[in-house]
Amino acid sequence: MQSEESRYDRGLDSMRAIFGPGIESALKGLAATSPDLVRCLVEFPFGDIYPRPGLDLKTRELLTVAALTVLGYPQGELKDHVRGALNVGCTPDQILEVILQMAVYAGFPAALEAVKTAASVFGGRSSPE
Amino acid sequence: MQSEESRYDRGLDSMRAIFGPGIESALKGLAATSPDLVRCLVEFPFGDIYPRPGLDLKTRELLTVAALTVLGYPQGELKDHVRGALNVGCTPDQILEVILQMAVYAGFPAALEAVKTAASVFGGRSSPE
Amino acid sequence: MQSEESRYDRGLDSMRAIFGPGIESALKGLAATSPDLVRCLVEFPFGDIYPRPGLDLKTRELLTVAALTVLGYPQGELKDHVRGALNVGCTPDQILEVILQMAVYAGFPAALEAVKTAASVFGGRSSPE
Amino acid sequence: MQSEESRYDRGLDSMRAIFGPGIESALKGLAATSPDLVRCLVEFPFGDIYPRPGLDLKTRELLTVAALTVLGYPQGELKDHVRGALNVGCTPDQILEVILQMAVYAGFPAALEAVKTAASVFGGRSSPE
Amino acid sequence: MQSEESRYDRGLDSMRAIFGPGIESALKGLAATSPDLVRCLVEFPFGDIYPRPGLDLKTRELLTVAALTVLGYPQGELKDHVRGALNVGCTPDQILEVILQMAVYAGFPAALEAVKTAASVFGGRSSPE
Amino acid sequence: MQSEESRYDRGLDSMRAIFGPGIESALKGLAATSPDLVRCLVEFPFGDIYPRPGLDLKTRELLTVAALTVLGYPQGELKDHVRGALNVGCTPDQILEVILQMAVYAGFPAALEAVKTAASVFGGRSSPE
Repeated sequence: MQSEESRYDRGLDSMRAIFGPGIESALKGLAATSPDLVRCLVEFPFGDIYPRPGLDLKTRELLTVAALTVLGYPQGELKDHVRGALNVGCTPDQILEVILQMAVYAGFPAALEAVKTAASVFGGRSSPE
Repeated sequence: MQSEESRYDRGLDSMRAIFGPGIESALKGLAATSPDLVRCLVEFPFGDIYPRPGLDLKTRELLTVAALTVLGYPQGELKDHVRGALNVGCTPDQILEVILQMAVYAGFPAALEAVKTAASVFGGRSSPE
Repeated sequence: MQSEESRYDRGLDSMRAIFGPGIESALKGLAATSPDLVRCLVEFPFGDIYPRPGLDLKTRELLTVAALTVLGYPQGELKDHVRGALNVGCTPDQILEVILQMAVYAGFPAALEAVKTAASVFGGRSSPE
Repeated sequence: MQSEESRYDRGLDSMRAIFGPGIESALKGLAATSPDLVRCLVEFPFGDIYPRPGLDLKTRELLTVAALTVLGYPQGELKDHVRGALNVGCTPDQILEVILQMAVYAGFPAALEAVKTAASVFGGRSSPE
Repeated sequence: MQSEESRYDRGLDSMRAIFGPGIESALKGLAATSPDLVRCLVEFPFGDIYPRPGLDLKTRELLTVAALTVLGYPQGELKDHVRGALNVGCTPDQILEVILQMAVYAGFPAALEAVKTAASVFGGRSSPE
Repeated sequence: MQSEESRYDRGLDSMRAIFGPGIESALKGLAATSPDLVRCLVEFPFGDIYPRPGLDLKTRELLTVAALTVLGYPQGELKDHVRGALNVGCTPDQILEVILQMAVYAGFPAALEAVKTAASVFGGRSSPE
């Protein structure tokens, strides 16, 4: 039996590990409109799912890059998770490899949109080369 | 047996009730490119479907917010219908509740995109609090 | 601060109210493969979201019918929620009205698939007329 | 100004030309559950859109095969429109060519599902060769 | 047996025919991030699929406009292919007719987004009238 | 510079490694309708993409399970790739973990459909327990 407080705390820890310390002010911005969605987001995906054993954080971030590439429309979330993937130790080449594979499953427009988004992240950091 | 003219007029009435009087100049802008899509839009969704009995306009607008949240990409249309939902008497809390429920059915990226769009509407009006 | 146990219990209560008492054996079947997905399903959508105030259960079920119609592929889940909508007091006409409105937002194939699924539920109960 | 009756009649004519004379009993079956969806389906897509000049019926059917392949889930509708495409004079090779091109835009799973559906139609007719 | 080099060359020829000579610098920009995706894009869709006989280039471009309208999120690719469709001889009216038909299969939001994108292309060229 | 023949051979090798030796007769069945789609499928996804270094085959199969779970409709392909993931050394727990994570990104219906498909594969093999 687990308290809500610990789900939230554990979720915030995961989010800091993935997105960096700036995440708390981003959440605060979102919570001005929907504090309940923020609570659910911190607790369920990042408190319940990401900290589970069975898949390491690098693999989870690559899976999320795949999922967001397939969905296609959430380029803002993809941007955050490309940054997140780099933060947890994935290389730019691994991220691009995931996106390339998604051309097979979701088509070239999905892959092209995702590569442009990844490029915008890589460009603002040290060179992906 | 119903004339085309009355479908168009009834559709325009629905659209004015939902989107406000500014809708006519928006339609005029769109009609410069595709007058036929404008005619179909006014007549079929807003002339045939929205005025039907069986569901009140508030419920219809919440259903549309749900649909657009699930689709994810049409954030421009979602913005219009968040405004529309407010215009026909839905509260910001009801709209946010719909979006939160959609996290279950379409995932968190869908809900996050929709909350940001809703926030941009609420911010330009009186406070949603 | 809320314990996990109460989230699960509350979720099971919601699910019984929506899907009827048969839900527990359905969950048991699913839990043979993935007990964790079952736990998440009971706790998050049905423990956290559905019991929230702000939208009554009838409206929530109509929103879910809308969401599943738009997604198109989860006809099994749609079948369960058409039954669920009837269980919580929605009429067949309201359910059909939601599906008809979705033709506007997700196209006619989405609405046609959903009507066939709804028909298969209505046919196994008293007449939808 | 055009009466509703003529939209319905014109739509039924289009549907007979595309789907063959069996369409009326299929529509009757669907109308037992939702007469309003049937009326909208006959009047809007087939009464308003398909009979428009600007694109011939063969091209329209190929476009519809493309759209249904991309959507992926409505394999029942795809089956009907593969038959429809053959009925209006498209060749099996043209239909397969459309599906192959969709592998580029919607990925290989979409194309594979569509080819299996097309094969089931071709198999029940004279050889697609 | 066909060499890779000829697939690439043939693909580049197709892309020049569709998108105009500016395509090479666009590809160079993308190749700075993902040279492998660029190679796959040139070779598979444009080297293998587009040059196939069975469908002429005008029909292929209309099918692609249909596919991108249905997907909804890749408005950047849609913009390129609206330009491409015009380049290979499709008229603005044919493009708008395709988009209008997609309202039936993917809903009005898909068609509205696509018409706005098409309008932005037509506006930067000679009048679509 | 690489010949077509070697792309096809390399693709067939990848497919045998993932799907087992039965794949060749499955491809033959599909090739009776569309030999060109079969050739593209063998050469591009499995000849070009899967054999690339940068991601091992286990990770690629988990990414594909994620992608197919998100798409939702291609349960036939998902079934093949759940088998494929097991064949290349993924455990049932890893596959279920991927599906569970997708509940976050594509919603619970996507995860529920995928778990049922995975269960049907696990059930026909040694127990996933």
